[in-house]
Amino acid sequence: MTIKDIAAYCDVSVSTVSRVLNDHPDVSPAVRDLVHEAIRKLHYVPNNSARSLVSSRSTAIGVVSRGVDNPFLSSLIRVLSREIHDRGYTMVLHQIATQADEVQAAAMLEREKKLLGVIFLGGRFNYTEDELRQLTVPFVCCTYTNTFGDLREDAYSSVSIRDEDEAEKAVRYLVDHGHRRIAVVLDDPTDSSIGQLRFQGYRRALTRCGLDYDPALTVLTGNYALSAVYDGICALLDSGADFTALLAISDALAIAAIKALTDRGRRVPEDCSVIAIDGLEMSLYTVPTLTTLCQPAEELARESVEMLVSLIEGTGSHRHKLMETVLRPGASVARLREA
Amino acid sequence: MTIKDIAAYCDVSVSTVSRVLNDHPDVSPAVRDLVHEAIRKLHYVPNNSARSLVSSRSTAIGVVSRGVDNPFLSSLIRVLSREIHDRGYTMVLHQIATQADEVQAAAMLEREKKLLGVIFLGGRFNYTEDELRQLTVPFVCCTYTNTFGDLREDAYSSVSIRDEDEAEKAVRYLVDHGHRRIAVVLDDPTDSSIGQLRFQGYRRALTRCGLDYDPALTVLTGNYALSAVYDGICALLDSGADFTALLAISDALAIAAIKALTDRGRRVPEDCSVIAIDGLEMSLYTVPTLTTLCQPAEELARESVEMLVSLIEGTGSHRHKLMETVLRPGASVARLREA
Repeated sequence: MTIKDIAAYCDVSVSTVSRVLNDHPDVSPAVRDLVHEAIRKLHYVPNNSARSLVSSRSTAIGVVSRGVDNPFLSSLIRVLSREIHDRGYTMVLHQIATQADEVQAAAMLEREKKLLGVIFLGGRFNYTEDELRQLTVPFVCCTYTNTFGDLREDAYSSVSIRDEDEAEKAVRYLVDHGHRRIAVVLDDPTDSSIGQLRFQGYRRALTRCGLDYDPALTVLTGNYALSAVYDGICALLDSGADFTALLAISDALAIAAIKALTDRGRRVPEDCSVIAIDGLEMSLYTVPTLTTLCQPAEELARESVEMLVSLIEGTGSHRHKLMETVLRPGASVARLREA
Repeated sequence: MTIKDIAAYCDVSVSTVSRVLNDHPDVSPAVRDLVHEAIRKLHYVPNNSARSLVSSRSTAIGVVSRGVDNPFLSSLIRVLSREIHDRGYTMVLHQIATQADEVQAAAMLEREKKLLGVIFLGGRFNYTEDELRQLTVPFVCCTYTNTFGDLREDAYSSVSIRDEDEAEKAVRYLVDHGHRRIAVVLDDPTDSSIGQLRFQGYRRALTRCGLDYDPALTVLTGNYALSAVYDGICALLDSGADFTALLAISDALAIAAIKALTDRGRRVPEDCSVIAIDGLEMSLYTVPTLTTLCQPAEELARESVEMLVSLIEGTGSHRHKLMETVLRPGASVARLREA
């Protein structure tokens, strides 16, 4: 039983069957059903030659994901899974806690699972050449680049957004809507990570817009815990702090912030506007709909796999790609009325 | 460099270092930081002997997850990742679309990646002995069991909740709060899946409570698309349908339903109560907080790995375990006032 038999049985081309097997979108539902039905009926187990040829050596690509409760990373893992599989490799997923060290985890995994390469998701921004010697295979930083470390640019690859610029863009959007007292919700402003860069972007925006930075309007969560966001916003309100808008550095944090504001009787956006960065599907269904800068999740993940595969196969060298977010206006930002 | 050197350097026991390496919670943050610091400084790559011994043979456990946009499954994958790793195995994750066939995907993966076993997440409930012959390694159904198929009980393992009973429990909770006209949001009532079982539970509850089933109060989504839930609820309201409460068969569907109700000017819970089944963390932050029956995600995933590992290692035989949900009362269900 081969793919040719299935094609003949269904009276379609071999490449059509192949497209169905690889879940490509350009096949009509009717043909897809026909092929799947034939595969079931004939008990065909696909095992194409390219895949068979490599089956004796490792095909493993490690994905080391840091920060296990991050729904944005879940959406990336979904795309990584598909892209890695479609290129004939195997995704070995290893999720570690926010505090754990992904370089060490990757080095262990590399030895144990004979990885050909590693994609880091949500990792640290401060790798040193010294510690990266633990890793002997190529790696790609997905969603970040090594801003605070000392790696040579040609020693690793990365795909990311310009976190500092994007945070500035979000704050400017609030300023353009008349807001002057803008709070920020983040994890830790000194963690050499997305949080630090987005916090820098927040402060840069304030400076460039001629606004003062007020440390009292900074809500720190620690480990991106939603309960800490909730408690932090409640404490901020209880302190009598004066603010009319808020930037959360991720959609999930924004959702918890909206909840706290609402529970304390503040209307969003009438009493407080909220903007975030991520673009989760779930944020389309918050009350009110979250205004957010959408990261190109699909492209971030696809480009990461493409970079790593070209390094593994020796057809490309290390690269760094920067992508843009797209504003998805919701109903969580309102123009500030003059008092 | 061995684990003993790290322990000596830090002046802690070898088992403490081991606990840190395995991310066990019972280590103080100070000791954890100390050990990680030493590991970084000494460039130690952990590679314990049990893992080394098996490195020449496959350690791969396949996790085939169906329905890639399901946040409940994301939370299970997190636990599966940790449990599989802790037991010295490798998680090979393969995510497939809701319409794709997980048995075929698993059979391909088994050949290509030399899997030792498979955990199916969110799969079909209607496997036949015939089609399962494609698979030659043991498998565990996680979150469901083969209700509609013809597998012998001793031919596979499963860990699940009693979907029908749990849906009945949710409806009874609404009835106990005075509701008589209860809508239901699900994917497809004839898909031999969670949706069908929970729909049966909904209907059984109505019957047992002496209430009529009204087909007009059924909102079908197709592929669990949140946009379809939203549109479906809006259409239901526009049709002038008379209902005071709603069961969504998953938290994600409930979040989209609450959004539609709110956007159409219905207050939740004053005008319409909402209950769901899942217990996502995110559902603690909806406005209002979602009342939901929480599945024991941690236990479902842990038990699945335990079952599969005991089958792989020949220390256990096929088993079927049923678990209970726990009601997490939010603010989305109100007692119906007498008209």
